[in-house]
Amino acid sequence: MYRTHNCGELRKENIDQNVTLCGWVQLKRDKGGMIWIDLRDRYGITQLAIEETKSSEKIIEIVNKIGREFVIQVVGKVIERYSKNEKILTGDVELEVANIKILSESEIPPFTIIDNSDGGDELRMKYRYLDIRRNPVKNALIIRHKIAQEVRKYLSNNDFIEVETPCLVKSTPEGARDFVVPSRMNQGEFYALPQSPQQYKQLLMIAGMDRYFQIVKCFRDEDLRADRQPEFTQIDCEMSFVEQNDILEMFEGFIKFLFKSVKNIDFVEKFPRISYKDAMEKYGNDKPDIRFGMIINNLSDTVKGHNFSVFDNAEYIGGICLENASEYSRKQIDELTEFIKTPQIGAQGLVYCKYNQDGTLKSSIDKFFDENSLQEIAKLMNAKKGDLMLILAGNKKRTLHGLSELRLKLANELGLRPKDTFAPLWVVEFPLLEWDEETNRYYAMHHPFTAPFEEDIPLFDTNAGEIRANAYDMVINGVEVGGGSLRIFDRELQAQMFKNLGFTKEETERQFGFLMNAFKFGAPPHGGIAFGFDRLCSLFGGADSIRDYIAFPKNNSGRDTMSESPSELSDMQLNELGLIVKK
Amino acid sequence: MYRTHNCGELRKENIDQNVTLCGWVQLKRDKGGMIWIDLRDRYGITQLAIEETKSSEKIIEIVNKIGREFVIQVVGKVIERYSKNEKILTGDVELEVANIKILSESEIPPFTIIDNSDGGDELRMKYRYLDIRRNPVKNALIIRHKIAQEVRKYLSNNDFIEVETPCLVKSTPEGARDFVVPSRMNQGEFYALPQSPQQYKQLLMIAGMDRYFQIVKCFRDEDLRADRQPEFTQIDCEMSFVEQNDILEMFEGFIKFLFKSVKNIDFVEKFPRISYKDAMEKYGNDKPDIRFGMIINNLSDTVKGHNFSVFDNAEYIGGICLENASEYSRKQIDELTEFIKTPQIGAQGLVYCKYNQDGTLKSSIDKFFDENSLQEIAKLMNAKKGDLMLILAGNKKRTLHGLSELRLKLANELGLRPKDTFAPLWVVEFPLLEWDEETNRYYAMHHPFTAPFEEDIPLFDTNAGEIRANAYDMVINGVEVGGGSLRIFDRELQAQMFKNLGFTKEETERQFGFLMNAFKFGAPPHGGIAFGFDRLCSLFGGADSIRDYIAFPKNNSGRDTMSESPSELSDMQLNELGLIVKK
Repeated sequence: MYRTHNCGELRKENIDQNVTLCGWVQLKRDKGGMIWIDLRDRYGITQLAIEETKSSEKIIEIVNKIGREFVIQVVGKVIERYSKNEKILTGDVELEVANIKILSESEIPPFTIIDNSDGGDELRMKYRYLDIRRNPVKNALIIRHKIAQEVRKYLSNNDFIEVETPCLVKSTPEGARDFVVPSRMNQGEFYALPQSPQQYKQLLMIAGMDRYFQIVKCFRDEDLRADRQPEFTQIDCEMSFVEQNDILEMFEGFIKFLFKSVKNIDFVEKFPRISYKDAMEKYGNDKPDIRFGMIINNLSDTVKGHNFSVFDNAEYIGGICLENASEYSRKQIDELTEFIKTPQIGAQGLVYCKYNQDGTLKSSIDKFFDENSLQEIAKLMNAKKGDLMLILAGNKKRTLHGLSELRLKLANELGLRPKDTFAPLWVVEFPLLEWDEETNRYYAMHHPFTAPFEEDIPLFDTNAGEIRANAYDMVINGVEVGGGSLRIFDRELQAQMFKNLGFTKEETERQFGFLMNAFKFGAPPHGGIAFGFDRLCSLFGGADSIRDYIAFPKNNSGRDTMSESPSELSDMQLNELGLIVKK
Repeated sequence: MYRTHNCGELRKENIDQNVTLCGWVQLKRDKGGMIWIDLRDRYGITQLAIEETKSSEKIIEIVNKIGREFVIQVVGKVIERYSKNEKILTGDVELEVANIKILSESEIPPFTIIDNSDGGDELRMKYRYLDIRRNPVKNALIIRHKIAQEVRKYLSNNDFIEVETPCLVKSTPEGARDFVVPSRMNQGEFYALPQSPQQYKQLLMIAGMDRYFQIVKCFRDEDLRADRQPEFTQIDCEMSFVEQNDILEMFEGFIKFLFKSVKNIDFVEKFPRISYKDAMEKYGNDKPDIRFGMIINNLSDTVKGHNFSVFDNAEYIGGICLENASEYSRKQIDELTEFIKTPQIGAQGLVYCKYNQDGTLKSSIDKFFDENSLQEIAKLMNAKKGDLMLILAGNKKRTLHGLSELRLKLANELGLRPKDTFAPLWVVEFPLLEWDEETNRYYAMHHPFTAPFEEDIPLFDTNAGEIRANAYDMVINGVEVGGGSLRIFDRELQAQMFKNLGFTKEETERQFGFLMNAFKFGAPPHGGIAFGFDRLCSLFGGADSIRDYIAFPKNNSGRDTMSESPSELSDMQLNELGLIVKK
C-alpha cells in the first residue's frame, strides 16, 4: 500500500495520526532551518514540514534533491499548523515528515503547473499530460464525468436503455464528409465512422427498444473552424410512441435534473417555447440568448414615407433599444457603426436616436423625422427617457443578422451575459427545408428523416420552403445545446422526402435502403434528440471553449501534437490495405 | 400522447380503468365471435379482446386487416380475464377494445418473432431490427445496459473518473493490426483506431487523474475467428499509487458488486489466486474452469521404469480422475481416444485405468503395470472405487493442453459446467515474455508496458523466459473476463524493455515517444485492468456467444449484412482523400 490518505483529506480530526501520502511536489520553500513542501494530488494539497535539526541527514539529502513535479512518498505525523491556510480544506494541518522517498524524478516542466499557466496553447497541447495537472483542466474533466453519470441516471430511471451502436458503419455521403476506414478483409471497400447514430437509433425503435440513449463518439471530416473537433461526443436519445410534446417534456426534465444535480440550480418554471419565426423576428437568431431583453422591433411599416431613401427602399427596418445609454458619445456610436459595417455583418449604416433625460429626442435622421415622428418610433420600441435606440435597414435576413450581432455585442460589453446565469428555452417549428442558392435546390434543415407538420404536407408542391418541421432545438444562453425531431415513420412519406431532396431512387436505395426496408415491418411513431456533450459540459463549467472539456483534443488542423498523429503508414500497412497514396 | 400504459404493466388493480396501449401484434386468434390479439412492446404482452357482436363494423374491418407485427393503438377498458395466464405478469387482465387504429402496417416478416426463431443466423443478421424484437436478444441488450450502469456506479463510488480518450489516434503497428483512417486535411497521413486506450490511460495517470475508467470501443483488424468482432467494448481502468494487491482487491470488489446487483449472487469468500505455473500444472490452461475438480496429476516421476516405452520416453505424463466412471464402456473410452487424437489436440493415445467397485484395477497397460503399481497410481490421483483414470503422455506443453481439453469435454458431457454457477479466480504471476519459435524472439505476453517482478529483473540477461510479470487475469468459468498489470513507470526500465523486445531506438521513439517523454515529468506508480465487456455480458446472461449482446454485430468476414458495409467509395471521396485503390 503506497498511501493511507490522499492529499485532500487530512483535517483537524487527524491530528497525531501517522499517515503516508503520495503526490507531486507543487512547491518547496526553504526558510532556513525549516523546509515546507506543498504535496499535490487530484484531491488537494497537503503541506509537509521538515525541520532540519530534527531530521536525519538522509532525509535532508533527499529533500535537497527534490524539485517541482517530483513524485514522492512521505510518512509522518499530522500536526496542527501554526499559521492556518483558510484557502484549502487541509489548511489546518501539516505533516511532520519522518520519512521521505522519491518515487519518480521530474525534469523542469515546460510550463508551471498553476491555474494561470504560462504555457500558451501549443505547449499545453503538446504536453497535455502536464496541462491536465492544472486545476482548470482537471476540474473540467471531473465535471464532465459528473455530468455523464447524472445523464445516465436520469435516462435509466426513465426507462431508456443504453445501446452501443457500431462505430464502423456504411458511408452515406450526405451532409458532412465521412471519415472512412479501409477494409483489409474486403479490399477496395471502406467503412465510415458515424456522423451520428441516426439510422441505428431509428432501427432500434423499429426493433421495439422503445427508449434508447447513448453517450457516443461521432465523427465529421469537416474543415475545422475554431472550437470544432473531428471527433465529438453526443448524448443521443430516441423514444417511441411519442408526440413532440412528450419529447420536450422528457428532455426539459432532463436538463432541469442536470442543473439541479450538478449545479444545484432549480428551474421551477417551464422553459419558454418560441417558434423559429418568432426567434428570427425578435432576436434575429435561431438560438437566442434570453438572459437579457433588447428585443428587436420591426419598424418596417412605421418609418417609411419620410423621404429618407435608406428606409424607403429597405425591405426591412428594425431596431433595438439600449437602456440608459442616451449619453453614449459620438465615439461610442461611431464604434458601433464600424462594427455593423464589418464584412461579416455588412450593414450600410447605423441610425441612432437618443431619448434624452429631459424628454427631447436627438437622432441621426433629424433631417427627415420631426420630434413627433421620433416619439412614435420611441413608443413603438418601448423606449424610456435615457435610452438609446439603434436602427438598421436593408435586406431582411441580413438586417436581422446585423441586429442580432449588435445585440450580443452590446450585451457582452454591458455584462448582461453572466456565465453563472442560465436561460434555457426551446425553439420549435423549424422550416423543414432550406433553399440553397448555390446548388439551386432544397436541403433538409435538420436531416431527411424529420417529420413535417401533417397539415403542411400539401405545400410540398406549392411552397415547400414554408413547410414546418416537427423539429426543436434546446438553446441555453445563445448556444444550441441540443436538437431533434419527430421522425417520418411512413415508408411512402420517407420516399417522397428523399425525392423532394433530389435523391434518385438508386441513391436512396444505396444509402438508406436498410432503413427504408425496415419501415416495411411495422415502424412505431418515434422521435428523439441529441445533445452536444462537449458543449453542454463547457456550458455547465462556465467556459467559452470546449477544448478543456476534452481530455486529448485535436488542434485546428485535426492534429494531435502530443502523439503526432495523423502520421504516415508503413508500406506494409498500405500494401495490406491495397491502397496507394497519391504523391 | 400515444399511450397511457405500456404493454407490461396492467394488473388486477387496473380493472375498470380506461387505457390506451400501443405495440406490435404478436398474434391474432379468431375464435368465431371473439378475436384475441396479443399486443407486444418492450415491457410485455397484453391481451386484447374484441367481441364481434359488440364492436362496430369499422373496428371489425380494421381488426380483419391487422396481421403479425402491425403497429397499432388501442383504447379500451381493462377487464378481468376469464382464463388467466400465469406465465405473464399481465395475465390476470385483458383489454376490452373500444377503438383501434393501425399506426403502421407490416409485411410478413422473414422469420417469426418468437423466442426460438426459425430464421437462421444469416437472416437474423440481415433483419437485425426484427431479431431484436425477440426476447432473447432484447433481454441480452437490457442486461448489458444494466451491467453498464452498475459498472459506472461502483467505479464512480470508488473515486474513478470516466475520461473519454480519443478514437482517432496514432498508428503503432505493434501487436494486432490497426484499422486506419486516412486524413483528408493532412494528405498521405492516417489516424488509427485504438486497439485499447493503453497509452492514454497511462498518460492520465501521469496527468494525476489518480483513478480512471471508461467503457470504450476498441478495434482490431484481425482475421476474425468465431465470436471475434472487429470492434469490441472494454471496461478500461487504471489506478495510481497502487501495488498489485490494491488492484486485485478493488476489482474483486467490482466483480462481487456486479454479481450482487445484477444477478443477486453473493460472493463472501475471497476469490482464489493461482499462479500461472500452477494453473498450467493443475488445469493445463491459464484460464481454468474451477466449477469442478478433475485436477491434473503429474505422474512423470512415478510411472517410469515399467518397460512401457510410451511413458519411459515421455517428457511428461499426467492424468485426470473421473469420478464414478469405472463402468465406462469400451465404446465410450474409444470415443475419448479418438477425441484426443484429433489434430487440434494431437496426442498419440489414451491410457485408462478403472478402479472397479470391487477394489480391483483394470487398465489398458496391465501388461506393464501390476496391481500394486496401479494402486500406487490410483493413490497418487486420489482415485476412489468406481473412478476412471485417464492418462496422457508426451511433450509437456501439448500433453497438458490435451488433458485440459479432455477435462473440459468430460465436464461438458457430465453437466459439470452449469451456466448459473460462477467460479471466479485470479491467475497471477504470468511470465513477462513469451518466446516465438517462428520469429525466434521474445514478445511481451501482455504488452510492453507490463512491470516485471523487481527481483526477476536480473534474469533479463540470463533466462528472460523465467521473468515473472506483475500481471493478472480474472477468469470466470474458464473464460478470461479481464486482465491487467502493474506498469513500468521508470523511463530507463521502459527503454530497456523495448530494447529487449527488439525495438530499435528509432522505432521506440516513433511509436512510444510521447509516452516515454511523459515519463520524464514525474510518473506515479500505476497499474490497471481491462474487462471484455461483450464477454462479461454474455457470461452474466448465461450465453456462449457474444453476438446477441451486441446490438449490431458484424459477421465473420467483418461485414454488416444489414447495411451492407463495408462498401465502395465514390471517386470523389477517394480523390478528396488522395487515395488510389489497387485493382
